[in-house]
Amino acid sequence: MKIAILGTGRVGSTLGRRWAAAGHEIVFGSRDPSGEKARAVAGDAGSSATAASVPEAATGADVVVLATPWSQAETIMQSIGGAAGQIVVDCINPLNDTFSGLDLGFTESCAERIAAWAPQARVVKAFNSVSSATMADPVYDGQQATLFVCGDDDDARNTVIELGDQIDFESVDAGPLKNARYLEPLAMLYIHLAMNGWGSNCAFKILKR
Amino acid sequence: MKIAILGTGRVGSTLGRRWAAAGHEIVFGSRDPSGEKARAVAGDAGSSATAASVPEAATGADVVVLATPWSQAETIMQSIGGAAGQIVVDCINPLNDTFSGLDLGFTESCAERIAAWAPQARVVKAFNSVSSATMADPVYDGQQATLFVCGDDDDARNTVIELGDQIDFESVDAGPLKNARYLEPLAMLYIHLAMNGWGSNCAFKILKR
Repeated sequence: MKIAILGTGRVGSTLGRRWAAAGHEIVFGSRDPSGEKARAVAGDAGSSATAASVPEAATGADVVVLATPWSQAETIMQSIGGAAGQIVVDCINPLNDTFSGLDLGFTESCAERIAAWAPQARVVKAFNSVSSATMADPVYDGQQATLFVCGDDDDARNTVIELGDQIDFESVDAGPLKNARYLEPLAMLYIHLAMNGWGSNCAFKILKR
Repeated sequence: MKIAILGTGRVGSTLGRRWAAAGHEIVFGSRDPSGEKARAVAGDAGSSATAASVPEAATGADVVVLATPWSQAETIMQSIGGAAGQIVVDCINPLNDTFSGLDLGFTESCAERIAAWAPQARVVKAFNSVSSATMADPVYDGQQATLFVCGDDDDARNTVIELGDQIDFESVDAGPLKNARYLEPLAMLYIHLAMNGWGSNCAFKILKR
């Protein structure tokens, strides 16, 4: 396939290099008029990769990969004529200006509302994105499922982390209570998968090296 | 510790049983005036587990586990006096009435906005919740990182799944494009972890059995 990579940062350059190695025709598109960065990443990606302007790169591509900052996304989409009929892979996270959260999408969580109802309680979000089948046995073929735990009170959060560890989870400190805004959607992803063929005997894990 | 489990469904009963086995004192609290369900799950959880009304269960507990439906959460918190000073573990997902999404928190995603800008493009969300270090090599000690892929066009989504597989991800069909509302917060969780000690060489995987 011909794949246009729009964006020459770490995500775009890495995906382009790997797909070039897998045999695809890669064109890096850059907004930089000199084309210098796009030529550099194309050079790194191997002989099947080339560089072009954004509209040129997108023209005729089977797949257009959007790997730009969120602030540039609308302009880029306009500059490629809306990519009519093309597959557009959106790799963007709509981070706000301070990178402290998402610019759109969500503003609240169940956990924060509970904390608002009970301001003297030390609320911790946990166990919401694992099935009861996983709670019954969090060890999958020798590997522990990850338990994400967030809360504003350090002692409370650490206690729940310990409670997770005691029943064989690999508990992970997921930060302040407002991160329930991430853990509740994570549960929705799990629920979607469980209801679409994965069932209840599946769980998230963080791999590390 | 004395742990009050509020809710006698699968989550509450499973956690209570496991923490009872780990040596904790468990009290199941139920809103059912007969107390029948709470006694049944306490019986299953072993000799250290008992049953009580919700306020009785919460009284004096070190940890209060909220494992009720979202619709009952506010009433439960009121009935236990706001759990002042207690650790409250929120296991709830604020599902809407039809279980098709969350009742609060988010309403949009970057991917959907891109699709609105480019209604003729076949937008697929992917590669947003994996680091470039993972893209460079998605295999962690023999295990493939999971790539979540969502989009409304089957052919486009399947193409991106294949593109993920070609560079050694375990690509997973994560459903329609609106599920970007889950994948974008997932990326925020990853970013939080990466910036708090985990670094870029970590990735999500779904364990299954």
